[in-house]
Amino acid sequence: MKRLVIGVDLGGTIVRAGAFDAQGNMLSMRDIPIEAARGPESGLRKIQRLIEQVRAESEADSLVGIGIGSTGPLDPIRGRIHNPFTLPTWDDVPIVEWMQKAFHVPVTLENDADVAALGEYWKGAGQSIKKLFAVTVGTGVGTALIEEGKIYRGMDGFHPEAGHMILDPNGPLCYCGAHGCWESFCAGPSIVRDILSRDLFHSRLLQMSGGNREKIDARMVADAARAGDTVAREAMEKAERYFGLAIVNVIINFMPEMIVLSGGLMKSSDLFLPAMQAAIEAHSVMLPAKQVRILPAQLGYHAGLYGAAYTIWSQENEQSEQ
Amino acid sequence: MKRLVIGVDLGGTIVRAGAFDAQGNMLSMRDIPIEAARGPESGLRKIQRLIEQVRAESEADSLVGIGIGSTGPLDPIRGRIHNPFTLPTWDDVPIVEWMQKAFHVPVTLENDADVAALGEYWKGAGQSIKKLFAVTVGTGVGTALIEEGKIYRGMDGFHPEAGHMILDPNGPLCYCGAHGCWESFCAGPSIVRDILSRDLFHSRLLQMSGGNREKIDARMVADAARAGDTVAREAMEKAERYFGLAIVNVIINFMPEMIVLSGGLMKSSDLFLPAMQAAIEAHSVMLPAKQVRILPAQLGYHAGLYGAAYTIWSQENEQSEQ
Repeated sequence: MKRLVIGVDLGGTIVRAGAFDAQGNMLSMRDIPIEAARGPESGLRKIQRLIEQVRAESEADSLVGIGIGSTGPLDPIRGRIHNPFTLPTWDDVPIVEWMQKAFHVPVTLENDADVAALGEYWKGAGQSIKKLFAVTVGTGVGTALIEEGKIYRGMDGFHPEAGHMILDPNGPLCYCGAHGCWESFCAGPSIVRDILSRDLFHSRLLQMSGGNREKIDARMVADAARAGDTVAREAMEKAERYFGLAIVNVIINFMPEMIVLSGGLMKSSDLFLPAMQAAIEAHSVMLPAKQVRILPAQLGYHAGLYGAAYTIWSQENEQSEQ
Repeated sequence: MKRLVIGVDLGGTIVRAGAFDAQGNMLSMRDIPIEAARGPESGLRKIQRLIEQVRAESEADSLVGIGIGSTGPLDPIRGRIHNPFTLPTWDDVPIVEWMQKAFHVPVTLENDADVAALGEYWKGAGQSIKKLFAVTVGTGVGTALIEEGKIYRGMDGFHPEAGHMILDPNGPLCYCGAHGCWESFCAGPSIVRDILSRDLFHSRLLQMSGGNREKIDARMVADAARAGDTVAREAMEKAERYFGLAIVNVIINFMPEMIVLSGGLMKSSDLFLPAMQAAIEAHSVMLPAKQVRILPAQLGYHAGLYGAAYTIWSQENEQSEQ
């Protein structure tokens, strides 16, 4: 009998669903725009249809459960999404209850950073790693800690947000309330904000953006820095330096065996990795920081699907062991 | 039959031992100077005799095991102390093997911050708290995370040192290799170093110390600040501000249910708590930081003894449950 789990990854723009067998083979996958602003009911119907399609395409005999990873804030205990920020109008949406009623199987809901990290633990760079820390840098800085295949949860199930730890109280103000948190220095929009505060008169960025400063994005800044542009180089070096300090703080706080890096930042890893290694080198007096393995994620955009499916398969395994 | 566990707390100056029953009652306790510089063999014999005395005084029928908490660095897996810093000459000392041979019972070795936190979990402020974070501020800043009664361990069993997380890269250089780590701002000697870098000509600290700047200690600075001394007030406010940021970072990184504070700092808690509350208030946008309970430790100097004993009793309970 062919049994499967469906993993769902709900982002601000795209929702993906993939069907997985217990060995972690992805049998089918689909994605569609979520168009969140049309309202949660329309969105939940979309996700339900997507799951039905993926299920049909994978030709399995039975559906064991549905694991959902979503952009947060969300409440994994009560199974509700509270995210009107990146899913406009989605405030207190009972996605778990909806899918349980539709499919009559167990449904889980977890933070997207957590499921992406779980995916890397199950089938990616972090297999069999006991303490795995994952960092995704893109429009924000997302983090997750996986302890022996289990998501670290704080008070009341809350997902900690290490991407907002303070690195320098003289840094830029972030929406999190802090000055100089990790995200305020290293996320894509933070790098753009920094470059726009500088004098670009002599920078090739003006040319690269066709004279339109609003078109400058983080990748353009990285490209200009690589090409030797002084202003871009200064902005990137600042982001690189703080990224190095942040990784040092992750090591000092968590002492993980491995740190897995993903997101848009990895496209500029040639710039970020040397500064990170230098920071680790300088801070290896007390702890064997240099022994922590730091690797790029392996599953790319599919990491969340794998991890969401794993939340169900790992429950299944625990029950069969008891 | 009266069964007991002996908990040992080995510090740089004093070694304590206490006998505990399974309910956490302390039946007897003793302490003596360790005089570490006389060498590890002399020290281990001292500890052995101390354990024998405490065992005899507690009039128990059987010794279940010995739990040792020690000032680190140490290797909890291999049971060895590597600490020539605060225990001069104690480099690679096999304390677990020695006590096993002497008493023929299970022996554990853990970091002192970890056992103090475990003690608070077992019988102190943090009872039945699922995610408990403990901070001790004195000559250094020690931290520990207890997850459902178990010590958080990093790679190869290493104890993370959150007391050295970087808060401001423009801060003072610490022996850990970082500029501006938590300890470099908030430990007693750090506060003294800061005050000695200031102009004390108009400060009452010169009078309080009898004109001898070398006699100024952190408590004196706190007293002068309370009495309205401007220079002392500035130094304390700086330490308080960074302490607040550090606690915010603990919450952002770990989202514990409770933070327990201990050490010499608690004598100045009237100074530190308002700044900490203000920092938490300012950083409660993303996470419900205000809901994290922050309490003084309850077991004082005995916390380590309780926790060391608990490392054995909790193993015992696990085995009897299986």
